[in-house]
Amino acid sequence: MSRYFTEETSMETVNARMGADVDPRLREVMACLVRHLHAFAKEIHLTQEEWEVGIDFLTKTGQICSGERQEFILLSDVLGFSMLVDAINNRRPAGATENTVFGPFHVDGAPVRAMGTCISLDGKGESCLFEGKVIDLHGNPIEGARVDVWSDNADGFYDVQQPGIQPKWNNRGVFVTGKDGAYSFVGIKPVSYPIPDDGPVGKMLGKLGRHPYRPAHMHYLVTADGYQRLVTHTFVGDDAYLESDAVFGVKKSLVAPFERLKDGATLWRSPFDFVLTPVSA
Amino acid sequence: MSRYFTEETSMETVNARMGADVDPRLREVMACLVRHLHAFAKEIHLTQEEWEVGIDFLTKTGQICSGERQEFILLSDVLGFSMLVDAINNRRPAGATENTVFGPFHVDGAPVRAMGTCISLDGKGESCLFEGKVIDLHGNPIEGARVDVWSDNADGFYDVQQPGIQPKWNNRGVFVTGKDGAYSFVGIKPVSYPIPDDGPVGKMLGKLGRHPYRPAHMHYLVTADGYQRLVTHTFVGDDAYLESDAVFGVKKSLVAPFERLKDGATLWRSPFDFVLTPVSA
Repeated sequence: MSRYFTEETSMETVNARMGADVDPRLREVMACLVRHLHAFAKEIHLTQEEWEVGIDFLTKTGQICSGERQEFILLSDVLGFSMLVDAINNRRPAGATENTVFGPFHVDGAPVRAMGTCISLDGKGESCLFEGKVIDLHGNPIEGARVDVWSDNADGFYDVQQPGIQPKWNNRGVFVTGKDGAYSFVGIKPVSYPIPDDGPVGKMLGKLGRHPYRPAHMHYLVTADGYQRLVTHTFVGDDAYLESDAVFGVKKSLVAPFERLKDGATLWRSPFDFVLTPVSA
Repeated sequence: MSRYFTEETSMETVNARMGADVDPRLREVMACLVRHLHAFAKEIHLTQEEWEVGIDFLTKTGQICSGERQEFILLSDVLGFSMLVDAINNRRPAGATENTVFGPFHVDGAPVRAMGTCISLDGKGESCLFEGKVIDLHGNPIEGARVDVWSDNADGFYDVQQPGIQPKWNNRGVFVTGKDGAYSFVGIKPVSYPIPDDGPVGKMLGKLGRHPYRPAHMHYLVTADGYQRLVTHTFVGDDAYLESDAVFGVKKSLVAPFERLKDGATLWRSPFDFVLTPVSA
Protein backbone atom coordinates (compact mmCIF):
# COMPACT_ATOMS: atom_id res chain seq x y z
CA MET A 1 0.00 0.00 0.00
CA SER A 2 1.24 3.48 -0.86
CA ARG A 3 2.06 5.78 2.03
CA TYR A 4 0.75 8.64 -0.10
CA PHE A 5 -2.89 9.58 0.02
CA THR A 6 -5.42 8.15 -2.39
CA GLU A 7 -9.20 8.22 -2.08
CA GLU A 8 -9.34 4.43 -2.41
CA THR A 9 -6.85 3.62 0.35
CA SER A 10 -7.57 6.57 2.64
CA MET A 11 -8.50 4.52 5.73
CA GLU A 12 -5.55 2.15 5.44
CA THR A 13 -3.07 4.98 4.86
CA VAL A 14 -4.27 6.88 7.94
CA ASN A 15 -4.34 3.83 10.19
CA ALA A 16 -0.93 2.58 9.02
CA ARG A 17 0.54 5.83 10.33
CA MET A 18 0.14 4.83 13.98
CA GLY A 19 3.42 4.06 15.73
CA ALA A 20 4.64 0.66 16.90
CA ASP A 21 4.29 1.38 20.63
CA VAL A 22 0.67 2.57 20.66
CA ASP A 23 -1.57 1.16 23.37
CA PRO A 24 -3.32 -1.82 21.71
CA ARG A 25 -6.83 -0.78 22.75
CA LEU A 26 -6.26 2.82 21.58
CA ARG A 27 -5.01 1.48 18.25
CA GLU A 28 -8.13 -0.66 17.88
CA VAL A 29 -10.56 2.13 18.82
CA MET A 30 -8.87 4.74 16.58
CA ALA A 31 -8.65 2.39 13.60
CA CYS A 32 -12.36 1.60 13.90
CA LEU A 33 -13.22 5.28 14.29
CA VAL A 34 -11.20 6.24 11.20
CA ARG A 35 -12.79 3.43 9.17
CA HIS A 36 -16.31 4.59 10.05
CA LEU A 37 -15.53 8.30 9.62
CA HIS A 38 -14.10 7.73 6.16
CA ALA A 39 -16.85 5.29 5.19
CA PHE A 40 -19.41 7.91 6.19
CA ALA A 41 -17.86 10.58 3.95
CA LYS A 42 -17.51 8.18 1.03
CA GLU A 43 -20.98 6.70 1.34
CA ILE A 44 -22.69 10.07 1.52
CA HIS A 45 -20.31 11.89 -0.84
CA LEU A 46 -19.89 14.63 1.75
CA THR A 47 -19.46 18.03 0.09
CA GLN A 48 -16.93 20.67 1.12
CA GLU A 49 -19.78 22.93 2.28
CA GLU A 50 -21.28 20.15 4.42
CA TRP A 51 -17.86 19.53 5.94
CA GLU A 52 -17.70 23.23 6.84
CA VAL A 53 -21.15 23.06 8.46
CA GLY A 54 -19.93 20.09 10.49
CA ILE A 55 -16.74 21.84 11.63
CA ASP A 56 -18.76 24.90 12.60
CA PHE A 57 -21.30 22.79 14.50
CA LEU A 58 -18.65 20.92 16.49
CA THR A 59 -16.84 24.16 17.29
CA LYS A 60 -19.99 25.86 18.58
CA THR A 61 -20.92 22.74 20.55
CA GLY A 62 -17.54 22.82 22.30
CA GLN A 63 -17.62 26.52 22.93
CA ILE A 64 -20.99 26.53 24.71
CA CYS A 65 -19.73 23.91 27.19
CA SER A 66 -19.02 25.23 30.68
CA GLY A 67 -18.95 24.02 34.27
CA GLU A 68 -22.76 24.02 34.20
CA ARG A 69 -23.40 22.85 30.65
CA GLN A 70 -22.15 19.84 28.68
CA GLU A 71 -23.41 20.20 25.11
CA PHE A 72 -21.37 17.27 23.77
CA ILE A 73 -23.06 14.89 26.22
CA LEU A 74 -26.37 16.37 25.09
CA LEU A 75 -25.36 15.70 21.48
CA SER A 76 -24.45 12.13 22.36
CA ASP A 77 -27.81 11.81 24.12
CA VAL A 78 -30.00 13.05 21.27
CA LEU A 79 -28.18 10.82 18.77
CA GLY A 80 -29.01 7.78 20.92
CA PHE A 81 -25.26 7.29 21.40
CA SER A 82 -25.33 7.60 25.21
CA MET A 83 -28.11 5.01 25.43
CA LEU A 84 -26.22 2.71 23.08
CA VAL A 85 -23.00 2.87 25.12
CA ASP A 86 -25.04 2.29 28.28
CA ALA A 87 -26.76 -0.72 26.68
CA ILE A 88 -23.55 -2.27 25.37
CA ASN A 89 -21.98 -2.06 28.81
CA ASN A 90 -24.99 -3.25 30.77
CA ARG A 91 -26.27 -6.37 29.02
CA ARG A 92 -28.28 -8.35 31.55
CA PRO A 93 -30.07 -11.68 31.72
CA ALA A 94 -33.80 -11.88 30.94
CA GLY A 95 -35.90 -10.77 33.88
CA ALA A 96 -33.31 -8.33 35.26
CA THR A 97 -34.26 -4.65 35.40
CA GLU A 98 -32.71 -2.78 32.49
CA ASN A 99 -30.46 0.28 32.72
CA THR A 100 -31.12 3.64 31.17
CA VAL A 101 -29.09 6.86 31.05
CA PHE A 102 -27.89 8.41 34.31
CA GLY A 103 -28.59 12.00 33.28
CA PRO A 104 -26.92 15.14 34.67
CA PHE A 105 -29.15 15.71 37.73
CA HIS A 106 -28.07 13.12 40.29
CA VAL A 107 -26.54 14.56 43.47
CA ASP A 108 -24.40 12.50 45.82
CA GLY A 109 -25.26 12.55 49.51
CA ALA A 110 -29.04 12.83 49.47
CA PRO A 111 -30.48 12.15 52.95
CA VAL A 112 -31.42 8.61 53.94
CA ARG A 113 -35.13 8.60 54.79
CA ALA A 114 -37.43 6.20 56.59
CA MET A 115 -39.62 4.06 54.36
CA GLY A 116 -42.83 5.82 53.36
CA THR A 117 -41.38 9.34 53.80
CA CYS A 118 -42.57 12.09 51.49
CA ILE A 119 -39.69 13.59 49.47
CA SER A 120 -41.72 16.35 47.82
CA LEU A 121 -40.84 19.39 49.94
CA ASP A 122 -42.29 22.22 47.88
CA GLY A 123 -45.94 21.21 48.13
CA LYS A 124 -46.36 21.20 44.35
CA GLY A 125 -47.67 18.44 42.12
CA GLU A 126 -49.83 15.35 42.41
CA SER A 127 -48.67 13.07 45.22
CA CYS A 128 -47.76 9.55 44.33
CA LEU A 129 -46.80 6.49 46.36
CA PHE A 130 -43.87 4.62 44.84
CA GLU A 131 -43.45 1.13 46.22
CA GLY A 132 -42.15 -2.31 45.45
CA LYS A 133 -39.33 -4.67 46.22
CA VAL A 134 -35.68 -5.05 45.41
CA ILE A 135 -35.20 -8.69 44.48
CA ASP A 136 -32.74 -11.02 42.82
CA LEU A 137 -33.26 -12.98 39.59
CA HIS A 138 -35.05 -15.73 41.56
CA GLY A 139 -37.46 -13.33 43.24
CA ASN A 140 -35.71 -13.37 46.63
CA PRO A 141 -35.74 -10.06 48.53
CA ILE A 142 -32.41 -8.21 48.82
CA GLU A 143 -31.70 -6.73 52.23
CA GLY A 144 -29.60 -3.57 52.58
CA ALA A 145 -30.15 -2.32 49.03
CA ARG A 146 -29.80 1.45 48.68
CA VAL A 147 -32.59 2.95 46.60
CA ASP A 148 -31.47 6.47 45.63
CA VAL A 149 -34.32 8.37 43.92
CA TRP A 150 -34.71 11.77 42.25
CA SER A 151 -37.20 13.52 40.00
CA ASP A 152 -38.18 16.95 38.75
CA ASN A 153 -40.87 18.93 40.53
CA ALA A 154 -44.30 19.77 39.13
CA ASP A 155 -42.81 22.67 37.13
CA GLY A 156 -40.41 20.32 35.34
CA PHE A 157 -37.23 21.40 37.16
CA TYR A 158 -34.83 19.49 39.40
CA ASP A 159 -33.93 21.23 42.65
CA VAL A 160 -30.37 21.88 41.46
CA GLN A 161 -31.75 23.82 38.49
CA GLN A 162 -33.57 26.18 40.86
CA PRO A 163 -31.36 26.82 43.88
CA GLY A 164 -33.06 29.26 46.24
CA ILE A 165 -36.42 28.56 44.64
CA GLN A 166 -36.86 24.88 45.48
CA PRO A 167 -36.01 23.55 48.95
CA LYS A 168 -32.72 21.64 49.11
CA TRP A 169 -33.16 17.89 48.44
CA ASN A 170 -36.64 18.49 47.00
CA ASN A 171 -37.81 15.26 45.36
CA ARG A 172 -34.69 13.36 46.39
CA GLY A 173 -33.95 10.70 48.97
CA VAL A 174 -32.24 7.41 49.75
CA PHE A 175 -34.13 4.41 51.11
CA VAL A 176 -32.43 1.29 52.46
CA THR A 177 -34.31 -1.99 52.30
CA GLY A 178 -34.84 -4.33 55.23
CA LYS A 179 -35.19 -8.12 55.24
CA ASP A 180 -38.31 -8.03 53.06
CA GLY A 181 -36.48 -6.04 50.31
CA ALA A 182 -39.40 -3.62 50.24
CA TYR A 183 -39.11 0.10 49.53
CA SER A 184 -41.73 2.84 49.58
CA PHE A 185 -41.79 6.60 49.46
CA VAL A 186 -44.16 9.39 48.53
CA GLY A 187 -43.12 11.74 45.77
CA ILE A 188 -45.04 13.40 42.98
CA LYS A 189 -46.17 12.00 39.66
CA PRO A 190 -43.27 13.41 37.59
CA VAL A 191 -43.86 15.67 34.60
CA SER A 192 -42.22 15.85 31.17
CA TYR A 193 -39.67 18.60 30.51
CA PRO A 194 -37.45 19.82 27.67
CA ILE A 195 -33.69 19.28 27.55
CA PRO A 196 -31.73 22.56 27.09
CA ASP A 197 -32.58 23.53 23.51
CA ASP A 198 -31.15 27.04 23.22
CA GLY A 199 -27.76 25.83 21.90
CA PRO A 200 -26.38 24.07 18.81
CA VAL A 201 -28.00 20.74 19.76
CA GLY A 202 -31.42 22.32 20.16
CA LYS A 203 -31.01 24.03 16.80
CA MET A 204 -30.11 20.69 15.25
CA LEU A 205 -33.18 19.04 16.77
CA GLY A 206 -35.28 21.78 15.20
CA LYS A 207 -33.83 21.11 11.75
CA LEU A 208 -34.47 17.39 12.23
CA GLY A 209 -38.13 18.03 13.03
CA ARG A 210 -37.69 16.73 16.58
CA HIS A 211 -38.99 18.15 19.87
CA PRO A 212 -36.69 18.48 22.92
CA TYR A 213 -38.95 16.77 25.50
CA ARG A 214 -38.29 13.91 27.84
CA PRO A 215 -41.32 11.94 29.01
CA ALA A 216 -42.02 12.09 32.75
CA HIS A 217 -39.86 9.72 34.79
CA MET A 218 -38.55 8.91 38.27
CA HIS A 219 -34.79 8.28 38.50
CA TYR A 220 -33.37 5.34 40.44
CA LEU A 221 -29.85 4.34 41.39
CA VAL A 222 -30.13 0.97 43.13
CA THR A 223 -27.04 -0.61 44.64
CA ALA A 224 -26.45 -3.66 46.83
CA ASP A 225 -23.35 -5.67 47.70
CA GLY A 226 -22.74 -8.45 45.19
CA TYR A 227 -25.07 -6.97 42.58
CA GLN A 228 -24.52 -4.82 39.49
CA ARG A 229 -25.18 -1.10 39.93
CA LEU A 230 -28.59 -0.36 38.47
CA VAL A 231 -29.08 3.08 36.93
CA THR A 232 -32.57 3.44 35.61
CA HIS A 233 -35.84 5.36 35.43
CA THR A 234 -39.46 4.35 35.63
CA PHE A 235 -41.65 6.15 33.10
CA VAL A 236 -45.19 7.41 33.45
CA GLY A 237 -47.17 5.20 31.07
CA ASP A 238 -49.59 7.80 29.79
CA ASP A 239 -47.01 10.46 28.94
CA ALA A 240 -47.42 12.16 25.56
CA TYR A 241 -43.67 11.86 24.85
CA LEU A 242 -43.28 8.22 25.89
CA GLU A 243 -42.58 7.11 22.32
CA SER A 244 -40.46 10.11 21.40
CA ASP A 245 -38.04 10.70 24.31
CA ALA A 246 -35.51 13.25 23.01
CA VAL A 247 -32.66 11.15 24.46
CA PHE A 248 -34.13 7.67 23.68
CA GLY A 249 -34.11 6.69 27.36
CA VAL A 250 -37.35 4.71 27.29
CA LYS A 251 -37.23 0.93 27.29
CA LYS A 252 -40.48 -0.97 27.17
CA SER A 253 -39.78 -2.78 30.45
CA LEU A 254 -39.35 0.53 32.29
CA VAL A 255 -42.83 1.89 31.63
CA ALA A 256 -44.51 1.70 35.03
CA PRO A 257 -48.17 1.62 36.06
CA PHE A 258 -49.50 4.82 37.63
CA GLU A 259 -52.79 3.99 39.30
CA ARG A 260 -55.19 6.69 40.39
CA LEU A 261 -56.12 6.13 44.04
CA LYS A 262 -59.74 6.55 45.13
CA ASP A 263 -59.33 7.92 48.61
CA GLY A 264 -56.75 9.27 51.02
CA ALA A 265 -54.33 12.16 50.65
CA THR A 266 -52.16 10.44 48.06
CA LEU A 267 -53.48 10.68 44.51
CA TRP A 268 -51.43 8.04 42.67
CA ARG A 269 -49.65 4.76 43.26
CA SER A 270 -46.84 3.41 41.11
CA PRO A 271 -45.70 -0.12 41.96
CA PHE A 272 -42.40 -1.35 40.51
CA ASP A 273 -39.97 -4.12 41.51
CA PHE A 274 -36.26 -3.81 40.82
CA VAL A 275 -34.57 -7.06 39.85
CA LEU A 276 -30.81 -6.86 40.42
CA THR A 277 -28.23 -8.88 38.53
CA PRO A 278 -25.36 -10.52 40.41
CA VAL A 279 -21.93 -9.05 39.70
CA SER A 280 -20.84 -12.45 38.43
CA ALA A 281 -23.57 -12.67 35.75
CA MET B 1 -40.04 -1.59 14.84
CA SER B 2 -40.46 -0.45 18.42
CA ARG B 3 -40.20 3.25 19.10
CA TYR B 4 -38.55 2.35 22.40
CA PHE B 5 -34.81 1.90 22.60
CA THR B 6 -33.15 -1.46 22.17
CA GLU B 7 -29.48 -2.15 21.49
CA GLU B 8 -30.37 -4.14 18.38
CA THR B 9 -32.53 -1.48 16.73
CA SER B 10 -30.71 1.59 18.03
CA MET B 11 -29.87 3.11 14.62
CA GLU B 12 -33.33 2.58 13.18
CA THR B 13 -35.05 3.99 16.28
CA VAL B 14 -32.92 7.14 16.22
CA ASN B 15 -33.31 7.71 12.49
CA ALA B 16 -37.05 7.05 12.52
CA ARG B 17 -37.41 9.99 14.88
CA MET B 18 -36.73 12.59 12.17
CA GLY B 19 -39.78 14.60 11.16
CA ALA B 20 -41.64 14.45 7.87
CA ASP B 21 -40.53 17.86 6.62
CA VAL B 22 -36.78 17.47 7.06
CA ASP B 23 -34.58 18.58 4.19
CA PRO B 24 -33.95 15.37 2.18
CA ARG B 25 -30.18 15.81 2.03
CA LEU B 26 -29.96 16.54 5.77
CA ARG B 27 -32.02 13.41 6.42
CA GLU B 28 -29.66 11.34 4.29
CA VAL B 29 -26.48 12.73 5.86
CA MET B 30 -27.76 12.40 9.45
CA ALA B 31 -29.05 8.87 8.92
CA CYS B 32 -25.68 7.82 7.51
CA LEU B 33 -23.83 9.54 10.37
CA VAL B 34 -25.99 7.84 13.01
CA ARG B 35 -25.51 4.44 11.34
CA HIS B 36 -21.74 4.78 11.37
CA LEU B 37 -21.56 6.24 14.88
CA HIS B 38 -23.63 3.40 16.30
CA ALA B 39 -21.80 0.77 14.24
CA PHE B 40 -18.51 2.13 15.61
CA ALA B 41 -19.65 1.78 19.25
CA LYS B 42 -21.06 -1.70 18.65
CA GLU B 43 -18.09 -2.99 16.70
CA ILE B 44 -15.55 -1.79 19.24
CA HIS B 45 -17.72 -2.39 22.32
CA LEU B 46 -17.00 1.15 23.48
CA THR B 47 -16.78 1.34 27.27
CA GLN B 48 -18.34 4.04 29.43
CA GLU B 49 -14.85 5.29 30.37
CA GLU B 50 -13.82 5.51 26.70
CA TRP B 51 -17.00 7.44 25.95
CA GLU B 52 -16.04 9.88 28.72
CA VAL B 53 -12.55 10.29 27.25
CA GLY B 54 -14.16 11.05 23.89
CA ILE B 55 -16.56 13.63 25.33
CA ASP B 56 -13.70 15.30 27.18
CA PHE B 57 -11.52 15.34 24.04
CA LEU B 58 -14.24 16.91 21.88
CA THR B 59 -14.99 19.49 24.56
CA LYS B 60 -11.34 20.53 24.88
CA THR B 61 -10.96 20.61 21.11
CA GLY B 62 -13.89 23.01 20.85
CA GLN B 63 -12.74 25.18 23.71
CA ILE B 64 -9.26 25.83 22.31
CA CYS B 65 -10.75 27.14 19.05
CA SER B 66 -10.54 30.91 18.59
CA GLY B 67 -10.37 33.47 15.82
CA GLU B 68 -6.76 32.42 15.23
CA ARG B 69 -7.01 28.70 15.89
CA GLN B 70 -9.29 25.99 14.46
CA GLU B 71 -8.53 22.76 16.30
CA PHE B 72 -11.46 20.84 14.76
CA ILE B 73 -10.09 21.46 11.26
CA LEU B 74 -6.72 20.27 12.56
CA LEU B 75 -8.43 17.14 13.92
CA SER B 76 -10.10 16.57 10.56
CA ASP B 77 -6.70 17.06 8.89
CA VAL B 78 -4.74 14.58 11.00
CA LEU B 79 -7.45 11.93 10.60
CA GLY B 80 -7.13 12.22 6.82
CA PHE B 81 -10.74 13.39 6.74
CA SER B 82 -10.01 16.79 5.14
CA MET B 83 -8.02 15.12 2.36
CA LEU B 84 -10.78 12.58 1.83
CA VAL B 85 -13.48 15.24 1.49
CA ASP B 86 -11.22 17.15 -0.88
CA ALA B 87 -10.60 14.01 -2.95
CA ILE B 88 -14.28 13.05 -3.13
CA ASN B 89 -15.19 16.51 -4.38
CA ASN B 90 -12.34 16.88 -6.86
CA ARG B 91 -12.22 13.67 -8.85
CA ARG B 92 -10.45 14.45 -12.13
CA PRO B 93 -9.61 12.69 -15.36
CA ALA B 94 -6.23 10.96 -15.77
CA GLY B 95 -3.48 13.45 -16.56
CA ALA B 96 -5.09 16.37 -14.73
CA THR B 97 -3.20 17.85 -11.78
CA GLU B 98 -4.63 16.58 -8.51
CA ASN B 99 -5.91 18.70 -5.63
CA THR B 100 -4.66 18.67 -2.10
CA VAL B 101 -5.73 20.52 1.05
CA PHE B 102 -5.98 24.31 0.99
CA GLY B 103 -4.52 24.84 4.46
CA PRO B 104 -5.07 27.84 6.73
CA PHE B 105 -2.33 30.15 5.39
CA HIS B 106 -3.66 31.49 2.09
CA VAL B 107 -4.26 35.24 2.03
CA ASP B 108 -6.48 36.92 -0.55
CA GLY B 109 -5.08 39.89 -2.41
CA ALA B 110 -1.42 39.00 -2.78
CA PRO B 111 0.30 41.32 -5.29
CA VAL B 112 0.39 40.36 -8.97
CA ARG B 113 4.05 40.10 -9.99
CA ALA B 114 5.88 40.02 -13.33
CA MET B 115 7.06 36.58 -14.41
CA GLY B 116 10.42 35.68 -12.93
CA THR B 117 10.06 37.96 -9.90
CA CYS B 118 11.57 36.89 -6.60
CA ILE B 119 8.92 36.55 -3.85
CA SER B 120 11.34 35.82 -1.01
CA LEU B 121 11.62 39.20 0.69
CA ASP B 122 13.45 38.30 3.90
CA GLY B 123 16.68 37.11 2.31
CA LYS B 124 16.52 33.77 4.09
CA GLY B 125 16.68 30.29 2.62
CA GLU B 126 17.98 28.61 -0.53
CA SER B 127 16.69 30.32 -3.68
CA CYS B 128 14.73 28.24 -6.12
CA LEU B 129 13.32 28.89 -9.58
CA PHE B 130 9.80 27.54 -9.96
CA GLU B 131 8.69 27.31 -13.58
CA GLY B 132 6.42 25.47 -15.93
CA LYS B 133 3.23 25.83 -17.88
CA VAL B 134 -0.47 25.90 -17.22
CA ILE B 135 -2.00 23.64 -19.83
CA ASP B 136 -5.23 21.82 -20.62
CA LEU B 137 -5.75 18.06 -20.82
CA HIS B 138 -4.50 18.09 -24.42
CA GLY B 139 -1.30 19.96 -23.57
CA ASN B 140 -2.46 23.30 -24.99
CA PRO B 141 -1.28 26.39 -23.06
CA ILE B 142 -3.90 28.29 -21.06
CA GLU B 143 -3.68 32.06 -21.36
CA GLY B 144 -4.79 34.30 -18.48
CA ALA B 145 -4.45 31.65 -15.76
CA ARG B 146 -3.85 33.10 -12.28
CA VAL B 147 -1.10 31.24 -10.44
CA ASP B 148 -1.37 32.24 -6.77
CA VAL B 149 1.56 30.86 -4.75
CA TRP B 150 2.61 30.84 -1.09
CA SER B 151 5.09 29.02 1.11
CA ASP B 152 6.76 29.21 4.49
CA ASN B 153 10.13 30.91 4.91
CA ALA B 154 13.38 29.18 5.75
CA ASP B 155 12.44 29.13 9.45
CA GLY B 156 9.24 27.19 8.68
CA PHE B 157 6.78 30.04 9.24
CA TYR B 158 4.34 31.76 6.90
CA ASP B 159 4.43 35.56 6.94
CA VAL B 160 1.02 35.74 8.66
CA GLN B 161 2.41 33.70 11.55
CA GLN B 162 5.12 36.30 12.13
CA PRO B 163 3.66 39.77 11.54
CA GLY B 164 6.28 42.41 12.24
CA ILE B 165 9.05 39.85 11.86
CA GLN B 166 8.62 38.83 8.23
CA PRO B 167 7.98 41.45 5.53
CA LYS B 168 4.37 41.61 4.34
CA TRP B 169 3.69 39.25 1.38
CA ASN B 170 6.94 37.38 2.04
CA ASN B 171 6.95 34.25 -0.12
CA ARG B 172 3.63 35.11 -1.75
CA GLY B 173 2.62 36.35 -5.17
CA VAL B 174 0.22 36.02 -8.09
CA PHE B 175 1.44 35.37 -11.65
CA VAL B 176 -0.81 35.62 -14.70
CA THR B 177 0.08 33.55 -17.74
CA GLY B 178 0.41 34.92 -21.28
CA LYS B 179 -0.28 33.16 -24.57
CA ASP B 180 2.38 30.52 -23.94
CA GLY B 181 0.79 29.49 -20.61
CA ALA B 182 4.18 29.73 -18.94
CA TYR B 183 4.80 30.82 -15.36
CA SER B 184 8.03 31.38 -13.47
CA PHE B 185 9.06 32.93 -10.19
CA VAL B 186 11.92 32.71 -7.72
CA GLY B 187 11.14 31.65 -4.18
CA ILE B 188 12.97 29.48 -1.72
CA LYS B 189 13.18 25.72 -1.47
CA PRO B 190 10.49 25.33 1.20
CA VAL B 191 11.19 23.60 4.51
CA SER B 192 9.16 21.16 6.61
CA TYR B 193 7.35 22.46 9.71
CA PRO B 194 5.12 21.14 12.49
CA ILE B 195 1.39 21.77 12.69
CA PRO B 196 0.30 23.32 16.03
CA ASP B 197 0.80 20.46 18.48
CA ASP B 198 0.34 22.13 21.87
CA GLY B 199 -3.41 21.35 22.01
CA PRO B 200 -5.67 18.26 22.24
CA VAL B 201 -4.87 17.19 18.66
CA GLY B 202 -1.11 17.35 19.28
CA LYS B 203 -1.59 15.32 22.45
CA MET B 204 -3.56 12.75 20.48
CA LEU B 205 -0.82 12.53 17.83
CA GLY B 206 1.66 11.84 20.62
CA LYS B 207 -0.44 8.97 21.96
CA LEU B 208 -0.74 7.56 18.44
CA GLY B 209 3.03 7.60 18.02
CA ARG B 210 2.82 10.18 15.22
CA HIS B 211 4.96 13.30 14.63
CA PRO B 212 3.32 16.66 13.78
CA TYR B 213 5.42 17.55 10.71
CA ARG B 214 4.38 18.47 7.20
CA PRO B 215 6.92 17.80 4.44
CA ALA B 216 8.21 20.90 2.63
CA HIS B 217 5.82 22.18 -0.04
CA MET B 218 4.90 25.15 -2.22
CA HIS B 219 1.20 26.06 -2.27
CA TYR B 220 -0.64 26.80 -5.51
CA LEU B 221 -4.10 28.10 -6.27
CA VAL B 222 -4.48 28.02 -10.05
CA THR B 223 -7.61 29.44 -11.64
CA ALA B 224 -8.66 30.14 -15.22
CA ASP B 225 -12.01 30.82 -16.88
CA GLY B 226 -13.70 27.61 -17.95
CA TYR B 227 -11.49 25.39 -15.78
CA GLN B 228 -11.91 23.82 -12.35
CA ARG B 229 -10.23 25.66 -9.48
CA LEU B 230 -7.00 23.85 -8.68
CA VAL B 231 -5.86 23.91 -5.03
CA THR B 232 -2.64 22.02 -4.66
CA HIS B 233 0.95 21.87 -3.44
CA THR B 234 4.16 20.63 -4.99
CA PHE B 235 6.34 18.69 -2.57
CA VAL B 236 10.09 18.63 -2.24
CA GLY B 237 11.01 15.09 -3.28
CA ASP B 238 13.83 14.51 -0.79
CA ASP B 239 11.95 15.63 2.31
CA ALA B 240 12.26 13.35 5.35
CA TYR B 241 8.52 13.60 6.04
CA LEU B 242 7.33 12.98 2.48
CA GLU B 243 5.83 9.61 3.37
CA SER B 244 4.47 10.70 6.74
CA ASP B 245 2.77 14.09 6.21
CA ALA B 246 0.82 14.76 9.44
CA VAL B 247 -2.23 15.79 7.38
CA PHE B 248 -1.85 13.22 4.56
CA GLY B 249 -1.57 15.96 1.90
CA VAL B 250 0.99 14.18 -0.28
CA LYS B 251 -0.13 12.56 -3.50
CA LYS B 252 2.45 10.77 -5.61
CA SER B 253 1.80 12.97 -8.63
CA LEU B 254 2.53 16.13 -6.63
CA VAL B 255 6.11 15.25 -5.70
CA ALA B 256 8.18 17.66 -7.81
CA PRO B 257 11.78 17.56 -8.96
CA PHE B 258 14.12 19.97 -7.19
CA GLU B 259 17.30 20.19 -9.27
CA ARG B 260 20.47 21.68 -7.86
CA LEU B 261 21.78 24.34 -10.29
CA LYS B 262 25.50 24.51 -11.03
CA ASP B 263 26.03 28.20 -11.49
CA GLY B 264 24.29 31.55 -11.07
CA ALA B 265 22.69 33.12 -8.03
CA THR B 266 19.75 30.70 -7.90
CA LEU B 267 20.52 27.40 -6.15
CA TRP B 268 17.59 25.21 -7.18
CA ARG B 269 15.10 24.74 -10.00
CA SER B 270 11.75 23.02 -9.66
CA PRO B 271 9.85 22.50 -12.93
CA PHE B 272 6.18 21.58 -12.74
CA ASP B 273 3.29 21.85 -15.23
CA PHE B 274 -0.27 22.37 -14.01
CA VAL B 275 -2.88 20.54 -16.07
CA LEU B 276 -6.31 22.09 -15.56
CA THR B 277 -9.60 20.25 -15.95
CA PRO B 278 -12.48 21.90 -17.82
CA VAL B 279 -15.47 22.84 -15.66
CA SER B 280 -17.59 20.54 -17.79
CA ALA B 281 -15.46 17.42 -17.11
